[in-house]
Amino acid sequence: MSQNAPLVIGSLAFDGIDQIDLTGPFEVLSRLPGATHRIYARSTDPVRDVHGLRIVPDATLDDAPRLDVLHVPGGPGQEALMHDEVVLQWLRQQSAGARRVLSVCTGALVLGAAGLLRGRRATTHWNSFHLLPCFGAEAVDQRVVVDGKWIFAAGVTAGIDGALRLAADMLGDTVAQSIQLGMAYAPEPPFDSGTPATAPASVLAAARAAAAELTARREATARTVAARLGIGS
Amino acid sequence: MSQNAPLVIGSLAFDGIDQIDLTGPFEVLSRLPGATHRIYARSTDPVRDVHGLRIVPDATLDDAPRLDVLHVPGGPGQEALMHDEVVLQWLRQQSAGARRVLSVCTGALVLGAAGLLRGRRATTHWNSFHLLPCFGAEAVDQRVVVDGKWIFAAGVTAGIDGALRLAADMLGDTVAQSIQLGMAYAPEPPFDSGTPATAPASVLAAARAAAAELTARREATARTVAARLGIGS
Repeated sequence: MSQNAPLVIGSLAFDGIDQIDLTGPFEVLSRLPGATHRIYARSTDPVRDVHGLRIVPDATLDDAPRLDVLHVPGGPGQEALMHDEVVLQWLRQQSAGARRVLSVCTGALVLGAAGLLRGRRATTHWNSFHLLPCFGAEAVDQRVVVDGKWIFAAGVTAGIDGALRLAADMLGDTVAQSIQLGMAYAPEPPFDSGTPATAPASVLAAARAAAAELTARREATARTVAARLGIGS
Repeated sequence: MSQNAPLVIGSLAFDGIDQIDLTGPFEVLSRLPGATHRIYARSTDPVRDVHGLRIVPDATLDDAPRLDVLHVPGGPGQEALMHDEVVLQWLRQQSAGARRVLSVCTGALVLGAAGLLRGRRATTHWNSFHLLPCFGAEAVDQRVVVDGKWIFAAGVTAGIDGALRLAADMLGDTVAQSIQLGMAYAPEPPFDSGTPATAPASVLAAARAAAAELTARREATARTVAARLGIGS
């Protein structure tokens, strides 16, 4: 394929996704000149985000073409995917052929369950960061981690930054700057509370407590996967 | 209604929306404790975003309850809405009863067409900013402009900042900080190209040229609305 052919971009969608893990990068990547950006899922029924937003997939996994850019979002529904061999095999096949793989948030855990994180530098949402070694990854505490063709964005909104990095990497700084201008992406968060290091301690403690049950499930799944992959305790 | 009752939040959706104008604030507001956040449109058929993402409305405009928070996204499809008296009347009614109205991007132009910007301080996407006086508004060049219960977020991704501001305003700083932490919203844009003032001059010129046709249409519509409202020269 020519380096100049339009990019074929695909996002994985699933029930229980955190929608902005998908829609943040979509906003960036769907603006790439000549690119097609489509949504793929197990079926073409609408997927329901963790807070209820419904997004319509464009096609099933089986009907996806070979992707130049594979985008793997996260969200609590990632737990079920980690036991879904159809999805895991799709990720193995598509990532092998892709020129870039963009993981957002706990999408990294799904890639881990597919055995795709072994020996890779990676990141994920701060609340799952400690699980990365279970998949054989080196956990790197940065908002965006690039390891060859693999781009890992940390939690949720980090997908926007990761996608802009990908855009610049594939098509040059000017393209990425143009997209950033179109999106008016000059963020002004009203607080400095976006990371465990900067959030008020009480806010962090409450967030950890609210997520405790989901975190425990993710830890159990990570241990199961580690055993399956033969990665030791 | 008690100040402590769960908030009823609704976003307007339409064909040709810029999806992150909707999904950015959804990510914030759907996390408000006890809130319901639903999507309303002319019909319950999926709406298609300007780049092809399809989102399923939860109900029609007629079936929307009285909203505590009315959210009005933008995108090129806003042009058609500005001539749609059913939508405009819905916005007048809902905004009259709402405790907050959040406008994102060119959603402000739709509010303008409904006659709701008269005498208000407002903002919108940088490429439509000059049109605000056509609707009787005072154009204020800030990322987020608050005028009483009205919150105007500038272009596209500014909706995230506007929604966090709304969250803090209604439910307190701690709630907003907790949401920011959950969303890992500690942005690190790879370039400083998110505003006309900071983007490279050549990038800005190209963006203006690419949008010229849409801008001309928006200017014509704004003039028509101004005449209808009896505003201006």
